[in-house]
Amino acid sequence: MELSTLGEQKSLLRTLAPGKRARLHRLLFEFGPGNGSLLLLPIDQGIEHGPRDFFPNPASKDPEYQFRLAAEAGYSAIACQIGMATKYYGDYAGRVPLILKINGKTDIPNSDEAFSTLNASVEDAVRLGADAVGYTLYVGSPAQAADLLQLKEVRQDCDRYGMPLVIWAYPRGAALDKKGGQTTFYAIDYAARMAMEMGADIVKLNMPKIDPEKDGLTPAPYNEMDVTQEEAIRHCVESAGRALVVLSGGSRVDDDQLLGQTRMIMEAGGSGVIYGRNVWQREWNAAVDIIEQIKETVSSTVRRVP
Amino acid sequence: MELSTLGEQKSLLRTLAPGKRARLHRLLFEFGPGNGSLLLLPIDQGIEHGPRDFFPNPASKDPEYQFRLAAEAGYSAIACQIGMATKYYGDYAGRVPLILKINGKTDIPNSDEAFSTLNASVEDAVRLGADAVGYTLYVGSPAQAADLLQLKEVRQDCDRYGMPLVIWAYPRGAALDKKGGQTTFYAIDYAARMAMEMGADIVKLNMPKIDPEKDGLTPAPYNEMDVTQEEAIRHCVESAGRALVVLSGGSRVDDDQLLGQTRMIMEAGGSGVIYGRNVWQREWNAAVDIIEQIKETVSSTVRRVP
Amino acid sequence: MELSTLGEQKSLLRTLAPGKRARLHRLLFEFGPGNGSLLLLPIDQGIEHGPRDFFPNPASKDPEYQFRLAAEAGYSAIACQIGMATKYYGDYAGRVPLILKINGKTDIPNSDEAFSTLNASVEDAVRLGADAVGYTLYVGSPAQAADLLQLKEVRQDCDRYGMPLVIWAYPRGAALDKKGGQTTFYAIDYAARMAMEMGADIVKLNMPKIDPEKDGLTPAPYNEMDVTQEEAIRHCVESAGRALVVLSGGSRVDDDQLLGQTRMIMEAGGSGVIYGRNVWQREWNAAVDIIEQIKETVSSTVRRVP
Amino acid sequence: MELSTLGEQKSLLRTLAPGKRARLHRLLFEFGPGNGSLLLLPIDQGIEHGPRDFFPNPASKDPEYQFRLAAEAGYSAIACQIGMATKYYGDYAGRVPLILKINGKTDIPNSDEAFSTLNASVEDAVRLGADAVGYTLYVGSPAQAADLLQLKEVRQDCDRYGMPLVIWAYPRGAALDKKGGQTTFYAIDYAARMAMEMGADIVKLNMPKIDPEKDGLTPAPYNEMDVTQEEAIRHCVESAGRALVVLSGGSRVDDDQLLGQTRMIMEAGGSGVIYGRNVWQREWNAAVDIIEQIKETVSSTVRRVP
Amino acid sequence: MELSTLGEQKSLLRTLAPGKRARLHRLLFEFGPGNGSLLLLPIDQGIEHGPRDFFPNPASKDPEYQFRLAAEAGYSAIACQIGMATKYYGDYAGRVPLILKINGKTDIPNSDEAFSTLNASVEDAVRLGADAVGYTLYVGSPAQAADLLQLKEVRQDCDRYGMPLVIWAYPRGAALDKKGGQTTFYAIDYAARMAMEMGADIVKLNMPKIDPEKDGLTPAPYNEMDVTQEEAIRHCVESAGRALVVLSGGSRVDDDQLLGQTRMIMEAGGSGVIYGRNVWQREWNAAVDIIEQIKETVSSTVRRVP
Repeated sequence: MELSTLGEQKSLLRTLAPGKRARLHRLLFEFGPGNGSLLLLPIDQGIEHGPRDFFPNPASKDPEYQFRLAAEAGYSAIACQIGMATKYYGDYAGRVPLILKINGKTDIPNSDEAFSTLNASVEDAVRLGADAVGYTLYVGSPAQAADLLQLKEVRQDCDRYGMPLVIWAYPRGAALDKKGGQTTFYAIDYAARMAMEMGADIVKLNMPKIDPEKDGLTPAPYNEMDVTQEEAIRHCVESAGRALVVLSGGSRVDDDQLLGQTRMIMEAGGSGVIYGRNVWQREWNAAVDIIEQIKETVSSTVRRVP
Repeated sequence: MELSTLGEQKSLLRTLAPGKRARLHRLLFEFGPGNGSLLLLPIDQGIEHGPRDFFPNPASKDPEYQFRLAAEAGYSAIACQIGMATKYYGDYAGRVPLILKINGKTDIPNSDEAFSTLNASVEDAVRLGADAVGYTLYVGSPAQAADLLQLKEVRQDCDRYGMPLVIWAYPRGAALDKKGGQTTFYAIDYAARMAMEMGADIVKLNMPKIDPEKDGLTPAPYNEMDVTQEEAIRHCVESAGRALVVLSGGSRVDDDQLLGQTRMIMEAGGSGVIYGRNVWQREWNAAVDIIEQIKETVSSTVRRVP
Repeated sequence: MELSTLGEQKSLLRTLAPGKRARLHRLLFEFGPGNGSLLLLPIDQGIEHGPRDFFPNPASKDPEYQFRLAAEAGYSAIACQIGMATKYYGDYAGRVPLILKINGKTDIPNSDEAFSTLNASVEDAVRLGADAVGYTLYVGSPAQAADLLQLKEVRQDCDRYGMPLVIWAYPRGAALDKKGGQTTFYAIDYAARMAMEMGADIVKLNMPKIDPEKDGLTPAPYNEMDVTQEEAIRHCVESAGRALVVLSGGSRVDDDQLLGQTRMIMEAGGSGVIYGRNVWQREWNAAVDIIEQIKETVSSTVRRVP
Repeated sequence: MELSTLGEQKSLLRTLAPGKRARLHRLLFEFGPGNGSLLLLPIDQGIEHGPRDFFPNPASKDPEYQFRLAAEAGYSAIACQIGMATKYYGDYAGRVPLILKINGKTDIPNSDEAFSTLNASVEDAVRLGADAVGYTLYVGSPAQAADLLQLKEVRQDCDRYGMPLVIWAYPRGAALDKKGGQTTFYAIDYAARMAMEMGADIVKLNMPKIDPEKDGLTPAPYNEMDVTQEEAIRHCVESAGRALVVLSGGSRVDDDQLLGQTRMIMEAGGSGVIYGRNVWQREWNAAVDIIEQIKETVSSTVRRVP
Repeated sequence: MELSTLGEQKSLLRTLAPGKRARLHRLLFEFGPGNGSLLLLPIDQGIEHGPRDFFPNPASKDPEYQFRLAAEAGYSAIACQIGMATKYYGDYAGRVPLILKINGKTDIPNSDEAFSTLNASVEDAVRLGADAVGYTLYVGSPAQAADLLQLKEVRQDCDRYGMPLVIWAYPRGAALDKKGGQTTFYAIDYAARMAMEMGADIVKLNMPKIDPEKDGLTPAPYNEMDVTQEEAIRHCVESAGRALVVLSGGSRVDDDQLLGQTRMIMEAGGSGVIYGRNVWQREWNAAVDIIEQIKETVSSTVRRVP
């Protein structure tokens, strides 16, 4: 499978209006690993999964833990919901940028018709001094009509306020389950493109998984392609065009795997990583240690100029 | 199961905007047991269950009964719906704070897709001189999309008017029934976290029940944990972070049990109790008596500084 | 079954804002039987049932018939929908008060998910010089979420304009059918309470029917209670608290029964009756006759001071 | 079956606000057959049925055909949707009044839950110089809640702008199919009343069909009545009260039948006819001819004074 | 089957308000083949199908590819979604007109209830300097109620801003599948008419396919007609009235077929073609070549004066 001959994506920042550019500059150059790369700390698992993710490291149940980690170990930004931002961000304002996630849901009902409604607004983000908003889009869900319509309002508010828009682009829903599920290259690639076409400045993707059985259920030509995971990521990065791409780690893996995948993501054109449980499910010192290693890996392997 | 090593939650009041702080101060220090604790009287059973709860004490059918009890026996606040607040609160204004519950529903249809729409607004609460609004959130209901979206508007109005937000956080719905139901530690713990993340200042929870059979159906690690009820409450209190937690009594129990559970709640970090039927299903003198004992228990066992 | 020991409900009028009080005063004291009682003429059957109710007395198909009856025989008010109010009320303005019913539906689909959307607004009522608005609430319907939300807007507009709110509180829907149906004491009692809690100034109820078989399906303690119809009505009146209660006659019955039930309603604390078909399905003179008898009965048996 | 003894409906025009009266005057007296009668040309079949209705007379596919016919043969008004009004009415403005139909749908899905959403507004009608708006109401559809709510806004806008409201009142939907279907006297009579009660100034009905088998399925007393078609029409006219009634021709019939039914409609109290396919499915000269005959019939048999 | 005797459709431009006329003039005369014809480049496949359409020519995954093609090879306009317009159109502003497509969806769920919600607004189009907006209408979908209502707002905004409205009129949905599916002459003809009646200035249609088996399932008279594909197109053009019609190519075909169909479209009264994959799935030089041939064909065969 030949890749694009047009070379790297053109600069994102150059196309942005001043407000978006000023805010993204902080994430890309003033905090975290810098060099135009991103290291994001998500702490939305309390709503998306419930407190169960906190038990491996009880200290992590207290939101202070993640805020302190993000600020003291030097993340590019912390991403959380309105309740935590309101009650905890004040003490960390100026010490780490905030991405306000403005929609979410529990995982108690199944994901057949996945849809996350807004629980906060872009205006809330402006008021709290956030440098970006986060929106979860369930690409391909039977509820996509409501989702895309809701995203329209968010995107327009972002344009109005110069607020960067980070889209968590998740393939999801009953219809997708018949086409190989939510982890295939096909599904992630589609999600990357959708996010860009809907106006994302940064796209958050899950790692595409290469699995011949599932890939066989995807539409042509994906069902016949033979790509490595790194090639798959590279395709996804290209599908997102000028929007920057960050990839997540998912549930906890061992350190070598974590750093290895970080390197692969960056070499495939990713602009950074978003690591939550892999970091804050560790005790403080172990967490600080691994963050240091991730930052070094990210800043030494970043290839893309934003 | 080890608990958090970060110690007690930090102060809620310190993080609040002036309006919220002024209003909560009245509930926490000027009325009820004081000392930063809460004793709340709910009288929303007429809508949530119908008049059937009033038959054990016919006098309780007249809303005057609960308003008089709340004012004369010294509750921190009375919580009721718009119709009662409009027609009865006038005579008690200044004598007991009001929490206006602004959504609700009958229990005639089942709870498979539980959702309570608004029947009043935060502005109604402001107009009536209420010191907080109450909102029932059905955590995990298939209707959560509509619920969370509606709550967003309420939360934003609370921010706008400096009105404290009390969330009745109830796990509910068909999907939950397959995961152990609405009374497990898992379910209550999730509800506590959701309420905080959605912006609650006070979270109202039902008592988690320890039941190995039901707990076995909950997601890991809850299905393998071995906690006492008090530990479960403590976890829930921690999940709510800086938001204060009050627990309810449910249907009527005997006095020893009631006072015992009150003590347990307070020692687990609860900020108070919300007792309705356990109080107003008694004749006047018996009701006043038990309230006095509850208040003593609450104020002598409160550990958390709000 | 012992009834409340608190005695009669307190005055409604005393709690009302000036606009509501001025308007209700006209219905309670200046028109109809007076003495604080109500005789209401509903002419919404054309929409709720279709024209079939008019065939027993063909003259009744012409809305003039009901308007003339209401004005000339001296009703407290006539209740109708927007189309009739707009095209016919002009000739009767000042001669009989108007209650504008602002929602409704046909009975062509079944009532499993009963819900009546608005077809007029409180502002329409103000513009037409109405003295109250009428709203049909289907208590316990699976569509209650939409119904209660809609009622909220109506109630708030009533507060804004000083317009009395009359709630037609009808237990209805598939879920209720499993709990004894829509005519039980349980169902009507719940409806009475809901209407008051949602902000009704006047509650319109259907007659509770005592039927051991159906009552056996209702929740405790209703399923074990042994009450007469008059006691049941008295309970419902108490459940409505300060809101006034009027009861309807339903389909046509004989004169003795009609007057007997009128007396029973008034003695049980009802504030009046709302009789449509029982009156206008008669020829003019017969209608005027029976109205006279009803008015005498109502004004001679009214016990409640509004 | 005895008919009303109150005689003819009272004047509609006398009850109308000046704007409505001025506009209706043009339709009733200044264009078409005059004398207070109506001859309306509907050209909404392109959306309601698709272009298939145009094949019998290919010239009719061009909207010019209907506009020219309406203007040159002298209709009271032409009724069409926004797209045609915008692109074709300009050339005929002043030569024939316009009724802007503001909702509609295709007939591709079945009618089980029939509902036509708005595709234009009353303001559009004002801007285009229309003399009335047309709204299709599906009486008895399971979607009636949405329909009636939508009609409310339209009706209020009509009141605001002095715009006459013509309701196409069509019994429809799965529930009705079990009660004899959409063509029975019962169904049409109900529709006539609904339209008037919802605020129609003119009601457009389909011809009631007398069919003992279907009538047997309708509610009492319709299932036992023995009426002629003319009597049925007369009942429907009475059910519409002060609102004027026009009846449609439906698919094409022969000339004698067409003129015969026109006479019957007018003698039963109808205020006119609305004939589309019966007219424009003919070649130009034949169309002009039959229009002349219809106009003569209408103006010579009109009995009702509007 | 005889065609209309009224001859060609009258001028569209003459009926348009100045803003629409000024903008359409650019597309029809200043860019592309000129002479009042249209050659449009759609690049919405990334959202409607996902990136899979880009693999035949990897360079096409980069939106630069289509923008450069459109500008340098001389299209009348490029049609894309908000994300691409925002991030890529800036470099091509003034070099090729923009049609902002303002709704869309993925093809992951099936099309049984097809509906595309808005992801951008007419105001977005104005702000970006677009010369038209594109809207996808699923004619006959069970979701048509929501679709037509949404289109109303778009159409009104287009009127407000003088923005031409291009409707992608696609027959779709479960109900249609029983009537021969989405490619029959019946279905496309209906779609053409709907688009015009809903206010389209330009209608984008897919090619009707003549297939006796499917045509046999369509309503009369379509099921009995014997038309060539060119006659079918001509009918569709007439059904769209004064609105201009462009047809699409669909998936890739060989060059002779492509040019042949282009000629047929233009001779049947089409105002142009909209070719995406048939063009940009080729390498740069091959793409430029075929565009040149298409433009020559279009401008040499255009018959209709807009």
